[in-house]
Formats: sequence, structure tokens, C-alpha cells
Amino acid sequence: MIYLDNAASTPVHDIVIQEMIPYFKEQYGNPSSIHKYGRLANVAIQNARKQIAALINATPEEIFLTSGGTESNNTAIHGITAQSKGRHVITSAIEHDAILEPCKLLEKQDYRVSYIPVDKYGMVNPDDVRKEITTDTSLITIMYANNEVGTVQPIKEIATIAQEKNIPFHTDAVQAVGKIPIDVKIDGVDLLSVSSHKINGPKGVGALYIRKGVKISPLILGGGQEKGLRSGTENVASIVGFGTACRLAKDNLSQNMVHFKNLTTKLSNRILSEIPDTTLNGHPEKRITNNAHFTFLGVNGEDLIIKLDEHKIAASTGSACSVRIQKASHVLKAMGFSHEQITGSLRLTVGITNTETEIDETVNVLKQVVKELRAVSPYKSKYNF
Amino acid sequence: MIYLDNAASTPVHDIVIQEMIPYFKEQYGNPSSIHKYGRLANVAIQNARKQIAALINATPEEIFLTSGGTESNNTAIHGITAQSKGRHVITSAIEHDAILEPCKLLEKQDYRVSYIPVDKYGMVNPDDVRKEITTDTSLITIMYANNEVGTVQPIKEIATIAQEKNIPFHTDAVQAVGKIPIDVKIDGVDLLSVSSHKINGPKGVGALYIRKGVKISPLILGGGQEKGLRSGTENVASIVGFGTACRLAKDNLSQNMVHFKNLTTKLSNRILSEIPDTTLNGHPEKRITNNAHFTFLGVNGEDLIIKLDEHKIAASTGSACSVRIQKASHVLKAMGFSHEQITGSLRLTVGITNTETEIDETVNVLKQVVKELRAVSPYKSKYNF
Repeated sequence: MIYLDNAASTPVHDIVIQEMIPYFKEQYGNPSSIHKYGRLANVAIQNARKQIAALINATPEEIFLTSGGTESNNTAIHGITAQSKGRHVITSAIEHDAILEPCKLLEKQDYRVSYIPVDKYGMVNPDDVRKEITTDTSLITIMYANNEVGTVQPIKEIATIAQEKNIPFHTDAVQAVGKIPIDVKIDGVDLLSVSSHKINGPKGVGALYIRKGVKISPLILGGGQEKGLRSGTENVASIVGFGTACRLAKDNLSQNMVHFKNLTTKLSNRILSEIPDTTLNGHPEKRITNNAHFTFLGVNGEDLIIKLDEHKIAASTGSACSVRIQKASHVLKAMGFSHEQITGSLRLTVGITNTETEIDETVNVLKQVVKELRAVSPYKSKYNF
Repeated sequence: MIYLDNAASTPVHDIVIQEMIPYFKEQYGNPSSIHKYGRLANVAIQNARKQIAALINATPEEIFLTSGGTESNNTAIHGITAQSKGRHVITSAIEHDAILEPCKLLEKQDYRVSYIPVDKYGMVNPDDVRKEITTDTSLITIMYANNEVGTVQPIKEIATIAQEKNIPFHTDAVQAVGKIPIDVKIDGVDLLSVSSHKINGPKGVGALYIRKGVKISPLILGGGQEKGLRSGTENVASIVGFGTACRLAKDNLSQNMVHFKNLTTKLSNRILSEIPDTTLNGHPEKRITNNAHFTFLGVNGEDLIIKLDEHKIAASTGSACSVRIQKASHVLKAMGFSHEQITGSLRLTVGITNTETEIDETVNVLKQVVKELRAVSPYKSKYNF
């Protein structure tokens, strides 16, 4: 199998697994216990917290552990709005559902939510954010990089605007971390969400960076873990694994970026030159290194995924999380894509385990299956396939 | 080391680890993806759901996966109260903080919460629950077994009262599952919380049983996993491990109960006969099999834990989650214990890996350290130690 769906999830690194296992078998203590088992578990968490912090240039005290990116996003939105008197939130039209759904809940609770539009590359204009700000604005949340098309947003510019107006700024960086350099101090963000399983760590664990001094309300209450912000026995083995994944992502960031870029460049160069009536979507330069998103005109992306799967290639039409419900991508809609362009889309996202040979094989298979699908396409005559 | 803090957390079973590892290394797909990796991950989750359901005699469709017991409890309380017009909740005075803290939040939101008292054994009287019910009551939540003293509550009787009045009934069964037989159909509960790491599964995963037909609101929103009730990429490896832990807990329940009961009986028989001025707390018969909770008069429990730790024995004064903040046990207070009785308390909770030899060694060490601590106790003259 060739796995090209690393934006959906990634294989857990062997070193990560090795470092996790002792925390299942031997160091299984509850970090809140005062005996040796508890203390060792607690030390392991604090060590992981340092590794997570280092990846984004935060301090360990600014890292709050969660069950994953979705919970981090929910905590940020609930946590800031519950603290604020303002009843207005600014986000973008192309956020992940883990941002959009909590925003919809706010609307039901009589908040007003502004969904900033994007250009054809999926890019937010910071001036559009500035224009939406009112005295009632309690939170701005704009994703770092889009999960479907990979476009990287002007986070620093938006953060500067938010700072000027003294409004907390959150960014969902789940797809950006480990793919491009991220520094919360340089960017000037107040809150940032990270997920472990997107960077070769285990599923079920993530973090919310909260800049020192920013106050938020908890979503999950109980024993008071994570300074009262996130109760529940800490997921020690997974946190250790997440820490290790962050250490590896930091140590290998430059070489990973080169590797990802080589593979996605090869993919898009070959696909665009060898398969006609095809476009690369998202911003041509301002994009995460591991994402390549295409539209094959006249082809149904779902059919394409199934054909690729038959050829032992794992790919996606877009967000894994919304695939089951088969709704048209709100991201591509916001970018002004036609229904035909949306349905003809394919996302290929590379990871640390992929090779150039796999990329070549994928392109060879794609050429064949796109041809097959176009031969029976309802758009056949339109394009003269 | 002798580990006698199995109520705080348990070692992960070797078979559980073995069954988890393929989902880190090879089957790392996102269960929402439509390619083979995704489908295999999805099948694994559905298989685990069956195993979890079987342990409590639920159907798989009634099992909702969460990040653990605390999230399950928060989801139940938020989920039911958000659906109801009633502004009154009934709970007990001896719940875990994962129930009490969400209840305190409700009070801040102008809900009324009734905290049912307990007798000296830590037992709730179902009639007290009945008396508190009004037309405004939206939820009753009473724990199955207490995490500190092990007392098992009259869940079936309370469920019957709740059914008569048509009020949803939730029980936090985190400490009871795997220690005594639990059957949601016989008990007639509407919602029940389970935690993986209390039954030799991994940390960071749990479940909420929701009886078919009971409607609740989600706490964490996003991609719509778990039928929209709990968004976020499913924690596949941990869910598989949790499923395996449930299968083992079910298959071995009878023999585990005998094993636990043998060890706790030996513990209490020897301690009560060999260490003077000592009591066994909680209900003498209606208690989970693996819990033994004592008061050693004139001894400070914290000192005792530290001394035991020096002798390589891991024990607890009570709930791990509240140890850090060093507050006096609200459970023992509610049972009418004096300050002296509370501070002199020790919880020993056995698990599948403990042996009779460990119990004997523990009692021998306890005899010695209790004597040492009493020799320097401020209560020395009071008891003529």
C-alpha cells in the first residue's frame, strides 16, 4: 500500500512507540498519586510538556494537554468566549468543522459570528479581519494552514491586528505544525491548537498553547489536572509519545520539509504535465510542504479514491472528518469553485515514510485511472476527453 | 515495588498492549477515511465497541467513546441538562470531583443541585433521592461504587425511582466496572460512565453508555464522530486496547472477583487483628471486591503513604485526583468522620497482578510504620500507644 493521506493521520514513529511502551507496562501510575509510580508518571508528563513547548517556542507552562486537536479547538472557543462579555467571534469560511461547529453553537446562543471569506487560493485577507472587529468582538480564530488545500494564512499579520485591538487570537495549527516552522512568539498568537497524530505521534492526545496571562474557562471539569483547565487522569503513555513526536518533528523539521517539498513538487510537476485538464489548488507558494491538492476536470473524486484504493493507494477528497457525510467541501466552495471542480478534487498528503518511487507509481496509476474515469464521464463531450 | 493503588490506575495487560501495537505501526488510518486504512480502523473501533458493550450488557449502538471517565461524566451532566427545561439536579455528597465540579458549574448557572447525604458506611438511602425529586428535576447522578471507601450504592433501587418519575439517571461506574457484575439492563440505568485505565486498559479512553432513546447534547463539536456526540479523530489504538481490556475483564470477572476478595479479606483480617486502634471503612459487605480502606487512629495518612513508599509500597489516602491539593476527603466528611479519623486514613486497592505474598509483606511493613508514626504522634497520650 502507498499511504498518501498524511493530513488525515500518520503512522506512529517507531521511536515514539518504543518510548510509550514502558508507560503501559511498568510506569502505569496516576500522575496525581504521591508514591513513586505517580511521581515518575508526573515527571514523564513534564518532560513531554517541554518537548511540545520547544516545537512551537512556547514555555512548558503555556502548554495544556488535551485529547486532541478537536478538543483543543473547542476549549479555545468555549474557554475564551465564556470569559468575555463580548458576543461576537471572527473566524474564516474555510475552518475545520472543529472550529465551525462550536461557532454554530455560539450562534444558537445568540452570539454573532463573522466568517471571513477567502480568495481563489483559499487565503484570508487580514484587512477583512480588521474590518469585522467591533467593541463586542471577544475572539478571533483563523486556522494556520488549511487542511484541504494547504494554504498558509497570514497569521502574523492577523495576530498584529488582534493585539492592536486587544482581542484574543487563536489559531488551529493542527495541519501546520511539523510542516513549516512555527514560533508562537514571532507569530504573536494567544492560543494555538496542536494534534499529536498529524505528526507521527499517537491519536487521542493534543495540546492547546495558551500564552501566559491569557485566561480561559475549562470545558471538562473534575480532579483539576492541567491547572484546573482540563480534568481527567492524564493520558501518560500517549503524552510521552506526543512529546517524543514533537522532539522528532523539531529535530527533523528542515530535512522533513525538504523531503515533503521534493515529493509534492514531483507529484504536481508530473501530474500537471502528464494529465491534461488538471489544476493544482491552494496557494502556489504559501502552502504547507506536504500537501498537494488537485482538480481533475470531469472526474468524480469519490470514484477516484475508490479506484486508487483498488490500486493500493490511499488518498482523500478532502477532510477525512466530513467524508462520511458526503457533503461538498465548504473550503472549495469558499474559494469559488464550481460544483464540477469540487467533485473532481483529490488531496494527496505526503509524510516521512513516503518515497519518490511511491510518488512515481502513484502518478502512473493516476494517469491510468483518470483516463478510465474520463472515458465514462458525463462531461466527456464537454472536454473532448 | 508492591502496587496497591489500583483504584488510581492499573498496569496495562500484556494482551492489551499486543493488540494495540498494530494500530500504531500499520493500521494507523483515520477511521473516517474511505480507503482501506480508514476502513480497517473503523472495523477495529466497531469491534471494540462490541467488547465494551458486552461487559455491561449494552448494545454496541449504546456505547459512545470518550477520552475517559471524567469526560464521560461531564458529557452526561452537560448533555442531559442542556436538553432539559428542568433546573434541578440530584447527586450525592460523595461523588468524584468529575461529578461534583460540573455540578458546581451548574449552580453558578442558577441550577439547584441536591447533594444526597450518606450514612456512616457511605451509603445513599434511595428514599432520600425520592424525596428530593421535583417537577424541575432534570437529572439524577449517583455513583455506582465510591472511589475512596468502595461502598456500592443501591443503583437498581434509585434507577427504579428515576424511571417512575421519568427522570434520566446517570451513574459513574468507573470504580465498579470489572470489580462486580454490572448489567445496565438489570440495573435500569440510562447513562453509565466507564474508564479504560481502571480495568488494565490504556489511559485516555473511556465510554459513556447511553440507553437507546435517551437524547443528549454533545460537549465537544466538530467532525461529527460518535454520531455527532463526540467529535475528534477516534483514538483507535487506545479504543482497541480498551475493547480488549473489557473482553478480559468480562471473561475473567468471576476469577478476578475471587482473587480481589481473597486479597482484601486477608488485608483487613490481618490489619484489624494485628494493628490496634484501626477500623475498616465503607460498607462491611456492600463494597467493591478490590478496595480496603482503613483508619489508623493517631497516624497521619500522608506520612503513612510516604513511609510505605520508602518501603516500596504504593498506596493512597483516597482519591488520587485530589491528593495534590491536600484537601480533607469530602467522602469521609460526609460519612461523619472526625478530622482525626479522616487524616488517619489509608486506601489499599488490589489488582490482577497482586499476590498473597505482597499482601503479607504489606501488612508486616504497615505494622512497623504505624508503630513508628504512633510513637511520635501528637495523639500518643490520648491512646496510650
